[in-house]
Formats: sequence, structure tokens, C-alpha cells
Amino acid sequence: MFIHTSIRTRNPEKSIGFYTKHLGMQVMSRRDIPQNDAEAIFLQDPERRGATLELTYYRKQENFLQPDYDDRLFDHLAFEVKDMDATIAAMREEGITITDEPFRLGLGGSILAFVEDPDGTLIELIQRG
Amino acid sequence: MFIHTSIRTRNPEKSIGFYTKHLGMQVMSRRDIPQNDAEAIFLQDPERRGATLELTYYRKQENFLQPDYDDRLFDHLAFEVKDMDATIAAMREEGITITDEPFRLGLGGSILAFVEDPDGTLIELIQRG
Repeated sequence: MFIHTSIRTRNPEKSIGFYTKHLGMQVMSRRDIPQNDAEAIFLQDPERRGATLELTYYRKQENFLQPDYDDRLFDHLAFEVKDMDATIAAMREEGITITDEPFRLGLGGSILAFVEDPDGTLIELIQRG
Repeated sequence: MFIHTSIRTRNPEKSIGFYTKHLGMQVMSRRDIPQNDAEAIFLQDPERRGATLELTYYRKQENFLQPDYDDRLFDHLAFEVKDMDATIAAMREEGITITDEPFRLGLGGSILAFVEDPDGTLIELIQRG
């Protein structure tokens, strides 16, 4: 059973702000990993639906490299949102990078958009059609 | 709500084999994306517990780059397994890369191990303590 996905953060409070304010996640636990000089933060939907996201903060990590889009191995994380327009407007107000403006998948289909989290991880937003 | 994680594959049948045989996932849907010369395959636990994994196959992708461990943005995907020893033995038999042999987290804690999927995506295995 696929239980969580782990990504890195260079600033835990900023990442927690992004995932809780814009994507409705809640911090379920956070724990220090002293042997790695790191901290792990687990977030999920408050009603415990959907997947768990682990944010790992290595306090000494300096580089956060992402290969060019064409050459990547990891692609994106996908989140369902209730109101795409309101989500995008709130993100734009904070200067969050919108890589693909909202578009509809076929007639009456879902509305999709792509943005980047504070560290450049690609995020797909989906409003069900 | 966090609904799925998407990674790339260079060989869909090989990846499907890895995630279904060793990690208990099932293909829920697969669809062609002709405008991107790509295919998207969605896998989940047969009982629809846990998260959904999307494997994306860009037929023309040549490079699958992963930054050095210290510099990564994406870290790993985590799967719960029932029998760590049997899982690791079956993976070893197929030549799958075991990056961290099984170890126990504290007295009576969970057993963890790390392996790589066929394209080098890091996978955490967890057997609950």
C-alpha cells in the first residue's frame, strides 16, 4: 500500500503555510531526526482523506536541484481543490509561480492548473468537472 | 486533498511489474495522451486504500536525471509491506537495487528498508512494528 510521498523543503514554516493555506492540508505530526540534523513533518487532509505528504527539512542542505522538465524522473504532486479560481487568485497574490494557467479538459471536464511549491516542486491542481 | 503522485517511467511494463508484483498495487486505469506522445498509468491498492501513483511514459524521453542524494528536491515514495524479508528476497532475486538493508526503528518499532524502482526512484519500505 502506497502510504506517503516525501519531498524536501528549505523552509518548513513557508512550506507548511503553502500546503495548509492553499491546499487544505493539516500538520498531523512533526519530529526531529537529530542523527540527520533534520526534521520530518507529515501533512494530510484534516478528515484523513487522500494521501500523506512528508516534508523533510535537512538543516544543512544548500542545493535543491530539479532537472529540466524534459529530463525529470519525478514529475508532480496532484491536489484536488474546490474552487480553482479562488485558489489561483490567492496564490498569485503571494507571488507563487503559476506554470500553467487553469484550463478545462474537454467539454464539462475537470479544470487543471500547474503551480510550483515554495521550493519549486511541481503541483497539479484539479477541480473536478 | 492530496490525490496522487506522478513519476516518469522509461518502460511501463517493467514499472507496472515492479509496483504490482512487489508492492501490491493494481493498474486502475491507463490512457494515451497523444498530444504529448505519452501514456499515463494510474495504480492503487486493489482495495483502494492508500495513495494513487501515476506513472507517466513519455515515449521520446531519453534522459531520466536524478540529482545527487544531498541535493535533491524530491526524496522518496513510501510503501507499507506485510513481510519485509520476503519482499526484499524477491526484489534481490530480480536484481533490484537495495540501497538500505532492513533495519528496525527502536525496540519493537517498524522495520524500514530503501530500494530503487526500475528507473531509480527511491522507495521506502515499511513493515509496521
